[in-house]
Amino acid sequence: MTQQRIARLAPAIFGDPVEAVDTPALLVELDAFERNIARMAQFAKAKGVRLRPHGKTHKCATIARSQVQAGAVGVCCQKVSEAEAFVAGGIEDVLVSNEIVAPAKLRRLAALTAQARIGICVDHPLGLDALIAAAPEAARPIDVYIELDVGGGRCGIEHIEDGLRLMDRIAAARNLSLAGIQAYQGSAQHLRKPAERKAAIEAAVARVLGLREALVKRGAGALRVTGAGTGTFYLEAASGAYDEIQPGSYVFMDRDYGDNEWAAEAGRFENSLFLLTTVMSRRARQAVVDAGHKTHSIDSGMPAIAGRPDLFYDRPSDEHGEIFPASPEVLLPELGQQLRLIPGHCDPTVNLHDWLVGIRAGHVEALWPVEARGAFS
Amino acid sequence: MTQQRIARLAPAIFGDPVEAVDTPALLVELDAFERNIARMAQFAKAKGVRLRPHGKTHKCATIARSQVQAGAVGVCCQKVSEAEAFVAGGIEDVLVSNEIVAPAKLRRLAALTAQARIGICVDHPLGLDALIAAAPEAARPIDVYIELDVGGGRCGIEHIEDGLRLMDRIAAARNLSLAGIQAYQGSAQHLRKPAERKAAIEAAVARVLGLREALVKRGAGALRVTGAGTGTFYLEAASGAYDEIQPGSYVFMDRDYGDNEWAAEAGRFENSLFLLTTVMSRRARQAVVDAGHKTHSIDSGMPAIAGRPDLFYDRPSDEHGEIFPASPEVLLPELGQQLRLIPGHCDPTVNLHDWLVGIRAGHVEALWPVEARGAFS
Repeated sequence: MTQQRIARLAPAIFGDPVEAVDTPALLVELDAFERNIARMAQFAKAKGVRLRPHGKTHKCATIARSQVQAGAVGVCCQKVSEAEAFVAGGIEDVLVSNEIVAPAKLRRLAALTAQARIGICVDHPLGLDALIAAAPEAARPIDVYIELDVGGGRCGIEHIEDGLRLMDRIAAARNLSLAGIQAYQGSAQHLRKPAERKAAIEAAVARVLGLREALVKRGAGALRVTGAGTGTFYLEAASGAYDEIQPGSYVFMDRDYGDNEWAAEAGRFENSLFLLTTVMSRRARQAVVDAGHKTHSIDSGMPAIAGRPDLFYDRPSDEHGEIFPASPEVLLPELGQQLRLIPGHCDPTVNLHDWLVGIRAGHVEALWPVEARGAFS
Repeated sequence: MTQQRIARLAPAIFGDPVEAVDTPALLVELDAFERNIARMAQFAKAKGVRLRPHGKTHKCATIARSQVQAGAVGVCCQKVSEAEAFVAGGIEDVLVSNEIVAPAKLRRLAALTAQARIGICVDHPLGLDALIAAAPEAARPIDVYIELDVGGGRCGIEHIEDGLRLMDRIAAARNLSLAGIQAYQGSAQHLRKPAERKAAIEAAVARVLGLREALVKRGAGALRVTGAGTGTFYLEAASGAYDEIQPGSYVFMDRDYGDNEWAAEAGRFENSLFLLTTVMSRRARQAVVDAGHKTHSIDSGMPAIAGRPDLFYDRPSDEHGEIFPASPEVLLPELGQQLRLIPGHCDPTVNLHDWLVGIRAGHVEALWPVEARGAFS
């Protein structure tokens, strides 16, 4: 295979003021970011649950290492190529919290066991067949989690009997070890009301307990239940059913999570991720910025504008976005002026960028490559 | 500045059957692609208009060179970093069909004139100030196009007087040359009915003629009018007002353009771009594929499924998409089966990928790096 030949330069120089950053660029406000990292680590420690942050949010080995240094057991991710990037970046425990069925990908996963503890999810006997075929190439046993659909209606087994059948075959396979249950309720994360999220996680917990009991009754040893996201982690952690939580977005937050109502026990995570953009066209009643949806994802709606509730962003196109006044008397920003957008959805936004620019006290302190940007295989 | 250190491997090996391509991956069906390239080149030649295809669609120097070999005068693009990628890839005439106002970007643009003919758009006196300040660093004059808003309501001048003022200052500036008028009616491209698009372009042409007449009356020399996209190029070409057309999507097409009704004179462009994806989770009434919106853009709606009008794609998430039967009796694809998605919108989809995999007769014939992927500065 050929290597990609063009590398993108970082959009900033160490020590520069933020005004000198080449836009559009993703900024990470380091003070807020570090508080988010510490807050979740302290929460997990206080609750006695393992923290395995989701690397699909940041795709950045530097951030993963910060999370591990703060107490995380490792990270999870969705793709083998993401796992490769994290292992290359020094993470020694990586769970692919997703099904992988292609034989070539599973061989790559098995090869990673030479450098790290590796886990994967299964929800189908044919997918398990492919994993069993690749596992003999592993240097040590691969942790296998049976994924249970706990209400998201996407991946995962539906019926306990399916889990028992998978368990029997995992137990008999070379280099596979039944590690536990993957139980992520993705569709609960953005239910706006705390009571709605609580009800969804209560239902998920009931499903988890049913499968765990059946697996234990059939002779499973220690089983770890893992799952949860930034919208609900405090519920899974308090449930007694989950041993490990997988929040991702908490490091950055975004406009969509900002629209949730938060219970006190959820803690207070701060927006640390901003898309810096510049007004590049300006008329009497219109300002156009240089950040369109090639630089921030609009799958969860429009970005907010940090510190400017009197303005809003709309009419995104590939390379442009338009800035409108929230009321007629508001003055629009001038040509050349910078704005900070709070992305609608942090994960797919970061995936559009090669670099994160760490900012403290208005200056560039860090430049982090997004090693797993575009790692979707 | 530091270079990004991780390069993505190509998802395929030359000569492999398409079934061996690592998914998700963007395929280009080379026969259809080459017919599209030739068809547009023949159209432009027959109509006596210059063809300057938009490189924002493909971001790929190999494709740009194919377009130039077929008769295009060069390419256009939206960002200085895209222009850098195309010039590095051997394209000798590049128009940035967009406003650039940051001094550092304009110095980079001026530097490109050592290797290529470079053009840029202006719509504001302060933006022109910045361009004038950078232009002395250019090795030869930069072509300046006054952008006119012809109905899109985004960038461009609104009033003829603004154009005259810009003209006077361009004429007096060192290393700037007034080349013409940029007049792209972006909001007309996806009007579904040919008559709607025709009406929109007639209005655009009237605006163009008004500005051109005023500029000529004030003493402008030869002025080139450039613009048009894949939805309307045949209308601008037939108008007599446009000298140059800028279609981009015609090389690939997409689901959104497929939803347009086409007039006979628009020619017949074919879908050549497909996102290959694999079913990685499967239940009785559900199939989940490994391509979510981190691999194809949903800003213009969901992808179609090539050759399978009895199936549809919905509920996209970051790394997953769900496949549903269009009617109850339809059988869903099995675990491990591949499908080809026709992306909802080709430009931002290509921007998510490092590689295009060229396919002919079911085998991998070409691997093209998307050099300007992520080039948004």
